[in-house]
Amino acid sequence: MKKRIRDFGVQIGTLPPGERNAITDVPGVRVGHATLADGAVQTGVTAILPHPGNLFREKVPAAVHVLNGFGKTVGTVQLEELGTLETPILLTNTLSVGTVSEALVRCMLEQTPEIGVTTGTVNPLVGECNDGWLNDIRGLHVREEHVRAALSSASVDVEEGAVGAGRGMSCYGLKGGIGTASRRMEIGGQTYTLGALVLSNFGRLDDLQVAGRLVGREIREQWEREAASEIPSVAPAEQTTAESVSVAPAEQSRAGSTSASSLEPRERGSIIMILATDLPLRDRQLKRVAVRAGVGLARTGSFIGHGSGDLVLAFSTATRIPHESPEPILTLPMLQDHYLDTAFRAAAESVEEAVLNSMTAADPVTGRDGNSRASLRDFL
Amino acid sequence: MKKRIRDFGVQIGTLPPGERNAITDVPGVRVGHATLADGAVQTGVTAILPHPGNLFREKVPAAVHVLNGFGKTVGTVQLEELGTLETPILLTNTLSVGTVSEALVRCMLEQTPEIGVTTGTVNPLVGECNDGWLNDIRGLHVREEHVRAALSSASVDVEEGAVGAGRGMSCYGLKGGIGTASRRMEIGGQTYTLGALVLSNFGRLDDLQVAGRLVGREIREQWEREAASEIPSVAPAEQTTAESVSVAPAEQSRAGSTSASSLEPRERGSIIMILATDLPLRDRQLKRVAVRAGVGLARTGSFIGHGSGDLVLAFSTATRIPHESPEPILTLPMLQDHYLDTAFRAAAESVEEAVLNSMTAADPVTGRDGNSRASLRDFL
Amino acid sequence: MKKRIRDFGVQIGTLPPGERNAITDVPGVRVGHATLADGAVQTGVTAILPHPGNLFREKVPAAVHVLNGFGKTVGTVQLEELGTLETPILLTNTLSVGTVSEALVRCMLEQTPEIGVTTGTVNPLVGECNDGWLNDIRGLHVREEHVRAALSSASVDVEEGAVGAGRGMSCYGLKGGIGTASRRMEIGGQTYTLGALVLSNFGRLDDLQVAGRLVGREIREQWEREAASEIPSVAPAEQTTAESVSVAPAEQSRAGSTSASSLEPRERGSIIMILATDLPLRDRQLKRVAVRAGVGLARTGSFIGHGSGDLVLAFSTATRIPHESPEPILTLPMLQDHYLDTAFRAAAESVEEAVLNSMTAADPVTGRDGNSRASLRDFL
Amino acid sequence: MKKRIRDFGVQIGTLPPGERNAITDVPGVRVGHATLADGAVQTGVTAILPHPGNLFREKVPAAVHVLNGFGKTVGTVQLEELGTLETPILLTNTLSVGTVSEALVRCMLEQTPEIGVTTGTVNPLVGECNDGWLNDIRGLHVREEHVRAALSSASVDVEEGAVGAGRGMSCYGLKGGIGTASRRMEIGGQTYTLGALVLSNFGRLDDLQVAGRLVGREIREQWEREAASEIPSVAPAEQTTAESVSVAPAEQSRAGSTSASSLEPRERGSIIMILATDLPLRDRQLKRVAVRAGVGLARTGSFIGHGSGDLVLAFSTATRIPHESPEPILTLPMLQDHYLDTAFRAAAESVEEAVLNSMTAADPVTGRDGNSRASLRDFL
Repeated sequence: MKKRIRDFGVQIGTLPPGERNAITDVPGVRVGHATLADGAVQTGVTAILPHPGNLFREKVPAAVHVLNGFGKTVGTVQLEELGTLETPILLTNTLSVGTVSEALVRCMLEQTPEIGVTTGTVNPLVGECNDGWLNDIRGLHVREEHVRAALSSASVDVEEGAVGAGRGMSCYGLKGGIGTASRRMEIGGQTYTLGALVLSNFGRLDDLQVAGRLVGREIREQWEREAASEIPSVAPAEQTTAESVSVAPAEQSRAGSTSASSLEPRERGSIIMILATDLPLRDRQLKRVAVRAGVGLARTGSFIGHGSGDLVLAFSTATRIPHESPEPILTLPMLQDHYLDTAFRAAAESVEEAVLNSMTAADPVTGRDGNSRASLRDFL
Repeated sequence: MKKRIRDFGVQIGTLPPGERNAITDVPGVRVGHATLADGAVQTGVTAILPHPGNLFREKVPAAVHVLNGFGKTVGTVQLEELGTLETPILLTNTLSVGTVSEALVRCMLEQTPEIGVTTGTVNPLVGECNDGWLNDIRGLHVREEHVRAALSSASVDVEEGAVGAGRGMSCYGLKGGIGTASRRMEIGGQTYTLGALVLSNFGRLDDLQVAGRLVGREIREQWEREAASEIPSVAPAEQTTAESVSVAPAEQSRAGSTSASSLEPRERGSIIMILATDLPLRDRQLKRVAVRAGVGLARTGSFIGHGSGDLVLAFSTATRIPHESPEPILTLPMLQDHYLDTAFRAAAESVEEAVLNSMTAADPVTGRDGNSRASLRDFL
Repeated sequence: MKKRIRDFGVQIGTLPPGERNAITDVPGVRVGHATLADGAVQTGVTAILPHPGNLFREKVPAAVHVLNGFGKTVGTVQLEELGTLETPILLTNTLSVGTVSEALVRCMLEQTPEIGVTTGTVNPLVGECNDGWLNDIRGLHVREEHVRAALSSASVDVEEGAVGAGRGMSCYGLKGGIGTASRRMEIGGQTYTLGALVLSNFGRLDDLQVAGRLVGREIREQWEREAASEIPSVAPAEQTTAESVSVAPAEQSRAGSTSASSLEPRERGSIIMILATDLPLRDRQLKRVAVRAGVGLARTGSFIGHGSGDLVLAFSTATRIPHESPEPILTLPMLQDHYLDTAFRAAAESVEEAVLNSMTAADPVTGRDGNSRASLRDFL
Repeated sequence: MKKRIRDFGVQIGTLPPGERNAITDVPGVRVGHATLADGAVQTGVTAILPHPGNLFREKVPAAVHVLNGFGKTVGTVQLEELGTLETPILLTNTLSVGTVSEALVRCMLEQTPEIGVTTGTVNPLVGECNDGWLNDIRGLHVREEHVRAALSSASVDVEEGAVGAGRGMSCYGLKGGIGTASRRMEIGGQTYTLGALVLSNFGRLDDLQVAGRLVGREIREQWEREAASEIPSVAPAEQTTAESVSVAPAEQSRAGSTSASSLEPRERGSIIMILATDLPLRDRQLKRVAVRAGVGLARTGSFIGHGSGDLVLAFSTATRIPHESPEPILTLPMLQDHYLDTAFRAAAESVEEAVLNSMTAADPVTGRDGNSRASLRDFL
């Protein structure tokens, strides 16, 4: 059964979570998955829909913050320039971004006949992580049908763990994938919500922290003890052999030992963090909120590795910006900046919790070449 | 016969051009096209190859500068972070970026079996403009075969005008497309070259300037005189009718007349500008060179419209950065910053000339719904 | 008598200017100068006040765009983060920025007793150019009293040319300094204004263009003819000698001759461009407008030299953002993005005209070591 | 006696510290202070010198990363454009930045007669935090003599705590100020060092974490118990009264209690983080290293508050870039990117430790209006 980090008595931060403790606590937001899980094919698509309408016609204010740009997310150039999101956000594996972009364009064209005829084109937003350890990523197994399935399955119930785009992902040497969390905020007598959804695929086991405890080292030491005493364990034996071909020189020279740790591969992961809120925030403010996702990420143990594409997307559902409307002047609400601190805290807390949820909810997976990842929940 | 702006006695700037006056004057650079031209299908793919080797294994320093980000170019996140280019640059129409990305990934996987297995993934670089006025852009007619054709046809002889990705593009209300130019520079007793290639698809007729002369207004006035006297002309009649459905309110209210100018559609174009040089420049310096592409663009009459995705990519062929090599420290040449002025001037001049070449070299094209564009060369 | 470029029959662009053709056509904006002109001391301070109130308490939306950051403008970090301006903008010479910042802080403290006690600190905005050719810049002659004088003299009548911060500046090898211009725009039945003020101090004579005409080369050729025939002229003889000590190697190697042009010093100038408008624009939109200042600059002949600190500041007077107010949500007007094109055009046109005005309005000045600059108006 | 966090048995991270566990473990780096401590005047200046030579003539590669730009640091525009540092880095209080800039300019002019005469101007780098809680910041007490004193006292022995610019700073509701730490790295058989120095002045007591332990809450609860039992303690009584005038509405509404925590003022602090290394890193790589300072900061409990100017400066001493040299091409060493992970880890670890050192080393200080701050070392 899927578990969340709170099921282990761990509480992250001080703000209260929303009803589902999920990004879908922000009214209107829905999430859907399409999962491919068959032998060496362990991958998929996850869709985040900011509202039920046509996003091209009714855009939402949005921003992107790149913590580390070793990644292939598409759609960021226009998002930076205009500060609006005009498609659902799709997540998939790195090499399938092109395929998923084309499929998303097709879906938008079907819904919106004016695109490319009486008005401009559409900017698909697709994020990615590299699931090549568990998935035959070179096979480009994700196809248009999976994009349609992810979009059409969207609901307020978010499945976490080894599902959708998270199917083949690894996190801190264990199984990663999809995780979510949310926080409620009282501002000016009103209740608002900020939610996070992450696609986690980064980190070295030794670095994993759970609410300040160095859980990763404990797990590694447990594996080493078990290896020494030949006791069968949940530790994936492949981990200390197959991946060692790609050990980075820097890591090798530093390790100077034959511990499991020294044989961890260089980090080639990534994390995509999506933040949604019903606070009336502008794109500039959303960008500032997005920066604080890095705080939550850091507290799980990441130091934002060179090879990791760590990217945050944030949007607000409080206003909808028409694609084009005849009146020249819009009048829009905006939270004053000096009330942002609570939103910043909420972003940090929900990302930290979402990363941990992505790990505890994930079932162990064995994929390409017998590579496998264990689940954090079996060690807590 | 294709003509270039110099064939009309127009000289841009003061630096001398290279042998071909083309981006391929930079040693190693090649350009290829695949053109789709059949009725409502007027589109294609253009490929720019920085060097003949495997770009993933031997990257080149590169930078991107976004003048106006209303565009869908992909691959910029990683380019910004790492300052290197690891695939050829492909250009196509806006809605085909996903398709072309997938195709480029497939080509890179074939050439590079280690991608996604023993090393990381690959970052495809694909730029675009919206050719929807002449091309049935919603039809997504570009397929993988066209990407392969563009790549395999690459040579040092650059065809300009209504070819490749430029097939369906419009520029200043006339036919745009592919243009190129280059400049030679003497620095420290050595000769270097900087070349530009543009995919032009922006601007309003009235704004067109050629070496300071307001040629666009002259053409428009000629059209108006001809329309008044019912003399058949090269002016496309469709221009003053079909496009008027999308006239922007702002433009309408300002025009207050029924002139051809007032019925020009709002700018929904774009321009992608590629700069190559054999100067030993770092990514930071290349970004600074890229900024000066905007100077050349401005001198052709553009004020960088809201709806225009104006983006510059610059790379240097002087060094190759290995994907990963065992030695920790590379030793690399770098031009001192205070020698950059000549490269800045070369960038401004070659972009200005490349835009004009893209127009004079272009044959008139009639495409979707009978929409057509005349060629600048018929008015000079 | 001071002349403006329109007095020579030159018209820039197509939009109509405001009543004064000055940045102060934007209601509420005022400009003041303090000028030091005595022998080797040729420098000063210019103040631009966005509105008559206390800017710390009632901020205006603002943005900065750096075309080339070889400059020492202060206050940009906070402006970028918060998108608001909270002091007048002061301009001075490069080495006096610290002095002027301290003086501006003192003025703000006097007006605003809560700063640093019950609320935070204040962010002074001070731009600069290097007037070291005409001014004894190492002497740090600007003092607090000059800042107070510039602020207290602010009015809607903008003096142009060799005044205030512009006193010692050079532009295209001639006298530069302060110039201004404005444009009116009709959007949605309302009239709005956008104005520019520049502090010009950049460029090589040969590059100067006036409405597309290569006026700089004509002037240089006239000087060369006069020098050959020993006819006394307005050309400053010092220019071809004293400055040659700092000729850049790159320029030297390219020139290969002893023409006046080859002895021009390497560009060490800068230009600060201030844009004001009463359009209801957000900071993101103001940044986009600021980008278009570069279009106007390019059309006067600049290619944005390496050594030039070219920076644009833009603000809107249409809204005032309270420093802090109790209600959490503000409701603010915003122009829709697709109406921005007219503002972009206005920015390009008014900067181009303001640069030319800064030159035609400037009297010739002789300063440090007998260095001098002639006025463009004596050559038109 | 001054203590460091390691004196309390706390170890941060896994990399070994350098000999002094200070930024001055990077060869050539020196640090000096001038401290003003007299009644309401509690402020100062700190100087960081990257090497013993003339920095204008021999610049170092450098980068800035703005985590939150609610700050007034000057010198960043040119640093971003050119990627080099050409003066020592000075730190002081927010309102004294102008004064310190002018003084630094004067010092550079004295050392470098060519500035402003035969070459360009100089770009002073001055960072700041707001020490207004303990210091009469409106008095502008820092003068030129203090800058000279800080520069001339520079040595490899770094005094930490309530000294120099850190004299009046607060951190997590306790005394903050200057802290430093370093890490050694083995890469390719060579040993390199990365060191951090922070000026800490941010955070709310409740958020303070020490190696994962929520020490801040423990201290606050201890204070509450003591307040309830009227036992004299080290808790500063002023903290729960005087500052409450500036409680932010957002914080008030959330707190809903009268605990000390709820009366903490809104965060108006800042932190300046300086990173030095002898690794041969380019400015782009230094910027990436600077990003990881945020990881260390987050682990001490910060969520990067709205009112906090959080900024990182990083430089490398491995190469010196001449101001201008005749040869056009320099040849420079560069670490390959895939070896950066160790430097990233070192940056995160040393910033985390430097923040904690700035607190444990600080003596309690009472300043303006009797405001005071206790020292963390009295609670560990």
